Amino acid sequence: MRTVEPRTSLFRVLNRVAGLLVCACLTLAGCADHGTSTAGSPGTQQTISSEQSAAVLPSWQDGAARAAILKFVGDVTREGAATYVSPDARIAVFDNDGTLWSEQPLPFQLAFMIEQVKAAAPQHPEWQRNPAFKALLAQDKAVLAQDRRAVLELIAAANSGMTTDEYDRSIREWLSSARHPRMQRLYTDLVYQPQLELLDLLRANGFQIWIVSGGTAEFMRVWVQQAYGIPPERVVGTEEKLTYELRDGKPALVRKPGFDFVDDGPGKPVGIFRAIGRRPILAVGNSDGDREMLEYTATGPGTTLAVLVHHDDAEREFAYDHQSGLARLDKAWDEAVARGWVVVSMKNDWKTVYRVTGAAAQQ
Amino acid sequence: MRTVEPRTSLFRVLNRVAGLLVCACLTLAGCADHGTSTAGSPGTQQTISSEQSAAVLPSWQDGAARAAILKFVGDVTREGAATYVSPDARIAVFDNDGTLWSEQPLPFQLAFMIEQVKAAAPQHPEWQRNPAFKALLAQDKAVLAQDRRAVLELIAAANSGMTTDEYDRSIREWLSSARHPRMQRLYTDLVYQPQLELLDLLRANGFQIWIVSGGTAEFMRVWVQQAYGIPPERVVGTEEKLTYELRDGKPALVRKPGFDFVDDGPGKPVGIFRAIGRRPILAVGNSDGDREMLEYTATGPGTTLAVLVHHDDAEREFAYDHQSGLARLDKAWDEAVARGWVVVSMKNDWKTVYRVTGAAAQQ
Repeated sequence: MRTVEPRTSLFRVLNRVAGLLVCACLTLAGCADHGTSTAGSPGTQQTISSEQSAAVLPSWQDGAARAAILKFVGDVTREGAATYVSPDARIAVFDNDGTLWSEQPLPFQLAFMIEQVKAAAPQHPEWQRNPAFKALLAQDKAVLAQDRRAVLELIAAANSGMTTDEYDRSIREWLSSARHPRMQRLYTDLVYQPQLELLDLLRANGFQIWIVSGGTAEFMRVWVQQAYGIPPERVVGTEEKLTYELRDGKPALVRKPGFDFVDDGPGKPVGIFRAIGRRPILAVGNSDGDREMLEYTATGPGTTLAVLVHHDDAEREFAYDHQSGLARLDKAWDEAVARGWVVVSMKNDWKTVYRVTGAAAQQ
Repeated sequence: MRTVEPRTSLFRVLNRVAGLLVCACLTLAGCADHGTSTAGSPGTQQTISSEQSAAVLPSWQDGAARAAILKFVGDVTREGAATYVSPDARIAVFDNDGTLWSEQPLPFQLAFMIEQVKAAAPQHPEWQRNPAFKALLAQDKAVLAQDRRAVLELIAAANSGMTTDEYDRSIREWLSSARHPRMQRLYTDLVYQPQLELLDLLRANGFQIWIVSGGTAEFMRVWVQQAYGIPPERVVGTEEKLTYELRDGKPALVRKPGFDFVDDGPGKPVGIFRAIGRRPILAVGNSDGDREMLEYTATGPGTTLAVLVHHDDAEREFAYDHQSGLARLDKAWDEAVARGWVVVSMKNDWKTVYRVTGAAAQQ
């Protein structure tokens, strides 16, 4: 079993994550004492009429948020206007977890990484004697809270050592079968329909769209082209350690425990600068981890827009903000109010939440 | 003055660079005892006739290297062929120093960073008492070889502390006026004409072209769009430390001493994986630092091509390979021979070396 040193960024990132695990286990165990997070129900989605679907942003209510977005797109595309932005500068950055798809009761990538621990168990008979492993299986919150480091070591061990090709296969398999505990749908069905329409609108208006996430690019690249139409080279995320090696005489990239770069909070503008080399003009996020990305974008030269998605819809999705242990929206909210950013109320601004699939999609 | 700790990657990278400084100073001081590196003369360029310029790769001699490249492009674009590669997978990666422009007597970015030390001197009166500073100004090879660490500290101090916007301005100013010591041309005039034609050919055939360099993306992005037609988001390089800060209340990215990632040798496939997320099918380099990138590309699935540019043209450019202290081509040469990669002889395969500018360009 690989050891994790406390001072590595793995520990720093996953320490916060271990806190989420405790929150998540509390939720899964049915305990309601961590705020307003409750599961939504897909049954309350409104259907979209054929006239509406022909309109721009058909799943968005005709309110201030929709109007601000359309005004911005119009302003930057109107040739001759003082607000015009040339196409090569129309860079849009989107957070992923909580902005393009759900992130409760815990970020879906974390759910995958925990499943990896269970999948790796047969190769680690010694884990049967590991209290953290037993607590993970049993969702024993008391034990998990006590020994975060042991939990992190298990996660690190189960998610490293393999080649990137092997890891991608594991991600793909998991996404094709794992179901969200409350929604009972595949995770890739839990992308937001109104956001898919926004991505389409931006693409149709010459924007270059990037994901800038605290999750890893490797996890996202397996599915974001199909789900969002975003190609692999436009995905920026936290970077895990990798080494170039020969395996059976063939070159491969091998995953190691630990992170080289954390693409969250003040890391997001750094990640943007390194990957894109241009300042965005549109940024969309949902939590304090997106604050600097939105600030960096909104204070850039020329016409810019910063958009925050507020999770206030306990019925159809999850409601969480200022008090949340996971993906808190507090300081970024204050800055949004002070700077006049657009705040999207899921409850009031979105006619529907999740993308339409299956029989409903064929109507 | 900022201190540099020996164990940081700054020291590891720049230690090698300090060795280059000594080599460079030996060259500049006229000492010919470090191998076969000699300056070229621009007067020996052949002119390009109007008929030739209408042809594909007109500055390439009609030899094996040109034929192999054209065959590869034909193979991957021929629909229905077993060798066909769909456009979204036509990823080409190019090293920069020594592959797209010259890198002697020392990498041009390093020449810039040294100029930054001189430019910063007025803000550092204490440097007047620093032997390394005096040695840098005097190109005193003996002193520079003795105290590499002091040299590295000067370079780190002179190239950090400012915002990225300020640094970009410095790069731009330097490029607009600094002249190569032997060629007496602007550095951006020392890009290779035959490679510009190769880039055009690839673009015309649906390739997505990336630079993957040991130099920094920040330095390159100032000029590579104009010189090569490569946009900022397709530039991958060594990553310097950056922090997101408020300066005078405005968000800025500030340069710190040190490197977070070295995009050289085995780092290149890692940089490619992180930035692009797809395996290239064409890789072009010139030294051992490109070996893993070429190997990773050439051993990928489907139709691939690895190309090495061999600097064997002492008359028109510089000749350096197996014995070179800078940009050695030794192990990669052996692998090229063993694996059947294409090796381009600058002397025999290129009718002209540098891009045509000024009056000659208007003929």
